[in-house]
Amino acid sequence: MKRQITVGEYLIKQLYDNNVKHIFGIPGDYILGFYDLLAKSKIQIVTTCDEQGAGFAADAYARIQGLGAVCITYCVGGLKILNTVAEAFAEKSPVIVISGAPGVNERQQSPMLHHIVNDFDTQHRIFKQVTVATAVLNDTNTIVSDINRVISSVFRYKIPGYIELPRDMVNKKIIAPNSCKISNIFSNKKALQEALQETAQMIKSSSKPVIVAGVEIQRHGIQELLLELLEKTGIPVVSTPLSKSVISENHPLYLGVYEGSMGFQNVRQYVESSDCVIMIGSFMTDVDFGNSPTPVDQGKTINITSSRFLIKHHSYEDVELTEFLKALCESKLIKKHLIDSKLFESHKQGKKSSINKVSNRKINVNLLFQIINDYINENNMIIADVGDSLFGGLDLFIHKGTEFLSPAFYLSMGFAIPASVGAQLANPDIRPIVLVGDGAFQMTGIELSTIAKQNLNPIVILLNNDGYRTERTMLDGPFNNISQWNYTKIIDLLGRGKSFKVKTTDEFYRALAKAEQNPEYTLIEVELNRFDGSSALKRMTESFGKKVR
Amino acid sequence: MKRQITVGEYLIKQLYDNNVKHIFGIPGDYILGFYDLLAKSKIQIVTTCDEQGAGFAADAYARIQGLGAVCITYCVGGLKILNTVAEAFAEKSPVIVISGAPGVNERQQSPMLHHIVNDFDTQHRIFKQVTVATAVLNDTNTIVSDINRVISSVFRYKIPGYIELPRDMVNKKIIAPNSCKISNIFSNKKALQEALQETAQMIKSSSKPVIVAGVEIQRHGIQELLLELLEKTGIPVVSTPLSKSVISENHPLYLGVYEGSMGFQNVRQYVESSDCVIMIGSFMTDVDFGNSPTPVDQGKTINITSSRFLIKHHSYEDVELTEFLKALCESKLIKKHLIDSKLFESHKQGKKSSINKVSNRKINVNLLFQIINDYINENNMIIADVGDSLFGGLDLFIHKGTEFLSPAFYLSMGFAIPASVGAQLANPDIRPIVLVGDGAFQMTGIELSTIAKQNLNPIVILLNNDGYRTERTMLDGPFNNISQWNYTKIIDLLGRGKSFKVKTTDEFYRALAKAEQNPEYTLIEVELNRFDGSSALKRMTESFGKKVR
Repeated sequence: MKRQITVGEYLIKQLYDNNVKHIFGIPGDYILGFYDLLAKSKIQIVTTCDEQGAGFAADAYARIQGLGAVCITYCVGGLKILNTVAEAFAEKSPVIVISGAPGVNERQQSPMLHHIVNDFDTQHRIFKQVTVATAVLNDTNTIVSDINRVISSVFRYKIPGYIELPRDMVNKKIIAPNSCKISNIFSNKKALQEALQETAQMIKSSSKPVIVAGVEIQRHGIQELLLELLEKTGIPVVSTPLSKSVISENHPLYLGVYEGSMGFQNVRQYVESSDCVIMIGSFMTDVDFGNSPTPVDQGKTINITSSRFLIKHHSYEDVELTEFLKALCESKLIKKHLIDSKLFESHKQGKKSSINKVSNRKINVNLLFQIINDYINENNMIIADVGDSLFGGLDLFIHKGTEFLSPAFYLSMGFAIPASVGAQLANPDIRPIVLVGDGAFQMTGIELSTIAKQNLNPIVILLNNDGYRTERTMLDGPFNNISQWNYTKIIDLLGRGKSFKVKTTDEFYRALAKAEQNPEYTLIEVELNRFDGSSALKRMTESFGKKVR
Repeated sequence: MKRQITVGEYLIKQLYDNNVKHIFGIPGDYILGFYDLLAKSKIQIVTTCDEQGAGFAADAYARIQGLGAVCITYCVGGLKILNTVAEAFAEKSPVIVISGAPGVNERQQSPMLHHIVNDFDTQHRIFKQVTVATAVLNDTNTIVSDINRVISSVFRYKIPGYIELPRDMVNKKIIAPNSCKISNIFSNKKALQEALQETAQMIKSSSKPVIVAGVEIQRHGIQELLLELLEKTGIPVVSTPLSKSVISENHPLYLGVYEGSMGFQNVRQYVESSDCVIMIGSFMTDVDFGNSPTPVDQGKTINITSSRFLIKHHSYEDVELTEFLKALCESKLIKKHLIDSKLFESHKQGKKSSINKVSNRKINVNLLFQIINDYINENNMIIADVGDSLFGGLDLFIHKGTEFLSPAFYLSMGFAIPASVGAQLANPDIRPIVLVGDGAFQMTGIELSTIAKQNLNPIVILLNNDGYRTERTMLDGPFNNISQWNYTKIIDLLGRGKSFKVKTTDEFYRALAKAEQNPEYTLIEVELNRFDGSSALKRMTESFGKKVR
């Protein structure tokens, strides 16, 4: 059945039907009409202090919700979020960018409308570089297929898409189908069978296989298939920094996070000495893999992602990730792989073990992470900003799936606080624990204002080590110094929230206990020595620091 | 004479020799080595809270200094400043972007290095859209000419340029000339003569000529030539929103700011009824011109900018702006144009007249601007953010040249506070008066931290009208509401500065007097009614509001 509907209404319907219940952004005159429609729709508008905050929030929301959207005005809004959309591109997060634009009619009358950079297509050309599909909705004959094409592509590849909406098109009438299914992609069945046989053969003839569970397993929502595969095969599994929490770290087959030379050596040894590495939805980034002196040998890998499928040095076309994983689980070719658990038990990353209360010691990074590790439970999500927040955070023990969120490959500072807005709106059952350094806090910490406005209650732990700590080990200079703020005073500026400054373990315990009871956000500033760092950070900077000059 | 020098040293030398004494940015691992060199050079590094702040600061600095530079890491830094570089492009500000990048060698070893978006050239392709020239310094044979080409182009067109510096190239040795002049562009002499004759003829046969002095006169530093031309011809002159303060508003031939239907009607009538409009370095933007129902007739204009020269409906190639203006001043073809000053005196925008002290009234926007108008003198520079800060600010009376700074065409919110950092570092003799709305303050107001760090002392006047005021008249909804902060508490967070909240005229006078004595920055929050607005804002929203749906 078809019916008449406006362009704006159709776009909103397609977003809502595909799970976008919140939209992030800041209005401007080129997008005001669409905001007016949004305000009257079932989608909740979440405005932030700066567009950058909206971009990070939408990225986090998309990672959890399966689709996210950010809605901004032309250029002065759109170009402010380019970095966050690039992050979503680099880390496979399905974000739809909706940008207002000058009306089709007014473009013809005047070439120099405000907010324009070079010509009317500048922003569109720029976003083509960081999206999988784009559309400018300027032709009522193609608008339905344009919108569906962009949303389908974002769904399939988990890469951002861009929709530009000239303001005089918002209320134009179009004829649209009543419901519109996003089309699925199917594999070439023969290619899939052949790949399956070869995979089975490789696994069968291996003595020490390992699965590298990558970030795309989260993005495509196929964690259940991974669990099924583990159950069926008994093969041990690792995650990567980008995919940490793809699987409960309690799982008996879980070894830990593989991070090349940066990570735990026992996990690394197991992976790098494996004779069959099954990489699923995982990318060979330098943070995940590249900095190992003895990296994984491609001749021993099966490597499937949403965009390509390699076995050893050859590739298969048209084999779709989810279908392949399903086929693998169902296949009679794959049997339980009898691996003596002794072989890998000794390679496991340290498990969570309740520590005795560390009384009245001056706090340092390692104690901080120990206490956090002891504190968190299955109702928390760790959201880590870049720096020791991330590197130390990678050693934390995560209970359930999708409970660790960080830009672990793109490494854009300022992610965590605005991301917690998107994360908690997507999953109101969790309480985020946000780990953020003082440098990152100065970038986007002000979005605590948005957190308060949305009545969210993350516990924000500010690792104050007086500057850009990660860089100090690589190459120090006055440029790594930042101004010292009285961070706890931010609650007075914003008029909401609670804050604590802690210098000892006891103060930290007390602050966590008070945060637990506080229905609003809590900021806990932890005073650290300028050169203190987690053991993970030390491994990282040794590995990365050599290249800076 | 030639000598051996490193790539980094040569780049720093070329920047410094071309007037870059300060550089704005935030370091990251791909640019750390270059920061280390900068720290040892004569250029002062100014780090900001977020890269966006550095971008706005560099733009403002470039507008005053003649060249500005921003230095950031790859992608996570570079893409954060894209909006500010787009602003510089749209408004002709000579900013050089220097971005770190993965080393040439490491690129060959690993295709997935952190911070990468799609491929190694993604950021470069994006910046091509908002710059006049770009270079990736990966070939020692061409580095000298690459650097000179980018800097020369930025100089010539007053449009940003982009230099990407792979980190393993910073300390590579090159052979470079000891001094390197930026090449000048010369006109085609015959074309110049022909254009001169036609211009002279048009002026001679006109009875009511007017000069529209555009922003390029400031950017190219040729205000003296404009004054000479006025002296020689006696033709009255107007500025535009983007070029406000191109000439002292005390000048006897100055009529006011021409803003089409948004501006003063007497100024508008004069320009739109002129039989010879001489536009110099001015752009036909919608803010400056487009929203007039009776715009300037192209058949009556002489229109020269740095990139093209039109007389009526035909164009001249290769006639350079500065050379043409010089030739016009020297030409015997041009005589004093005897215009009865009565003809234009009545068209002048209201002059500054000292008002009587407005005692103990609740403050409103019009009173606010009256008091500011009375307060400012030739040692102040008005830096206006977008919104009523700009529209009301356009009616202020500016004493000297280059003392009004605002993104009056691109209209990117969040400009003013970080811009004041760049402006005051470029001209330490002035004290900025920053006008900023509460919406814009929430975007970048935190850069007061940078102001404090640099020991600058602007007076920041925060027009708190509780949300996105400009949009409320166009189309109001809950999306125009923002959180109310206790703005004056920001000094406690930052640990520096003074702040006042004022509700009456008396309180405002007192706060200004205290600010005058305060050696640090002062924040004055002015509590305004949510629907209060300047008369200029009302003219603007009537003109622009019709198009939002």
